[in-house]
Amino acid sequence: MTQPSTTPRAVVIYSGGMDSLTVLHNALEAGFEVHALSFHYGQRHARELDAARRVCEQLNIAHQVIDIRAIHSLIGNSALTDSEREMPRADYAEDNMQDTVVPNRNMILLSLAIGHAVNTGARVCYYGAHGGDHAIYPDCRPEFVERMNDVAAIANYEPVEVRTPWLHADKSDILADGVRMGIDYAASWTCYIGDELACGECGSCRERLKAFQALGMTDPLPYRQRTPSATDSQTD
Amino acid sequence: MTQPSTTPRAVVIYSGGMDSLTVLHNALEAGFEVHALSFHYGQRHARELDAARRVCEQLNIAHQVIDIRAIHSLIGNSALTDSEREMPRADYAEDNMQDTVVPNRNMILLSLAIGHAVNTGARVCYYGAHGGDHAIYPDCRPEFVERMNDVAAIANYEPVEVRTPWLHADKSDILADGVRMGIDYAASWTCYIGDELACGECGSCRERLKAFQALGMTDPLPYRQRTPSATDSQTD
Repeated sequence: MTQPSTTPRAVVIYSGGMDSLTVLHNALEAGFEVHALSFHYGQRHARELDAARRVCEQLNIAHQVIDIRAIHSLIGNSALTDSEREMPRADYAEDNMQDTVVPNRNMILLSLAIGHAVNTGARVCYYGAHGGDHAIYPDCRPEFVERMNDVAAIANYEPVEVRTPWLHADKSDILADGVRMGIDYAASWTCYIGDELACGECGSCRERLKAFQALGMTDPLPYRQRTPSATDSQTD
Repeated sequence: MTQPSTTPRAVVIYSGGMDSLTVLHNALEAGFEVHALSFHYGQRHARELDAARRVCEQLNIAHQVIDIRAIHSLIGNSALTDSEREMPRADYAEDNMQDTVVPNRNMILLSLAIGHAVNTGARVCYYGAHGGDHAIYPDCRPEFVERMNDVAAIANYEPVEVRTPWLHADKSDILADGVRMGIDYAASWTCYIGDELACGECGSCRERLKAFQALGMTDPLPYRQRTPSATDSQTD
């Protein structure tokens, strides 16, 4: 056992999805005492939060689920949080996935995580932005991370570093590294719909299935249907 | 009447205090359709929120009070939010007022306000950082505002500008401009303690009283006691 007082701490924004599950293990592998933070922001796929709770219990790491649904009236303009809007069921593409943009989401979540880091003496915040998201989400791009780091360095008496280990990687790179670390991806949730079984049709499911396909692996998660190939992007 | 569709919108972070009340009027004077946002973050002086509600009703401007107390467990390490900690009763000074720092507060509030701006088509967010806070609060300094602007410009599809009209002004400059605009400061609340009467002793009351004193005016707010001079900083 390392002494708790000398182990550096890191806050990890952990949604329960496969990217942030891999980031969580990445921070543990780097030797940090991890404080995982999940946010309930009104997402339809709150099932991912249950996955997050189970994993943190199993790994015996500190975990808080913060209910920020009160801010829904501020940023509610997205298919991710509004169950009356139709979720795009196709590959990620700029024209359809703008519907899943939650305004300013990553700045909001990072600002809370940085506050928590300051409060708990952590000097590092991890989050799972990755290359595959660049084209779609402005707040997953390298320049966003760079500028968040610039402000996080001076916003408090103690500087905090924002780390995004997968910023230039795609989902299959993440999966490959996770497999190397022995992660069980049955413990993660990715589908944006949030029904009993993953839908296999939303952009998020498709991207996940493609990553497993790229590595010649089968996703251990049960699906209602598995999109048969990476090029088949039209359903319904 | 201007047409609502052509009037540019601005989100104003409006705590109910005298700085943000002046900022609110500044944004109105600049011709914006103002959406005021107040945050209930567990502050002891929630009385300021009542002041904010009354003012917005009177001015007939859109106003939301967002309850973000759920994040208290993330950033609760401050005398501003923890009623069991003693509030410093003295002039603002670096050694005592660090107790009133809420970790990462302005980044959190600005990230929410920017999300709301994106959601409502506003391109400008106002907040009341001012020169007098520089030494004490890292997130009131010009470099913080500059870096927040850098990230707000690219965090969403639509750039948002963070405006801080009082960044290089002190509290008496703010008051002077507010008086010019005809603001009734009896409608603002400043005291950090939040009892029936303003205490007159906390750093926030003292700074306010000094501003009125500097302009040769009497603060219209009722106080339990008025600190007799700017140099008398020891009480209790």
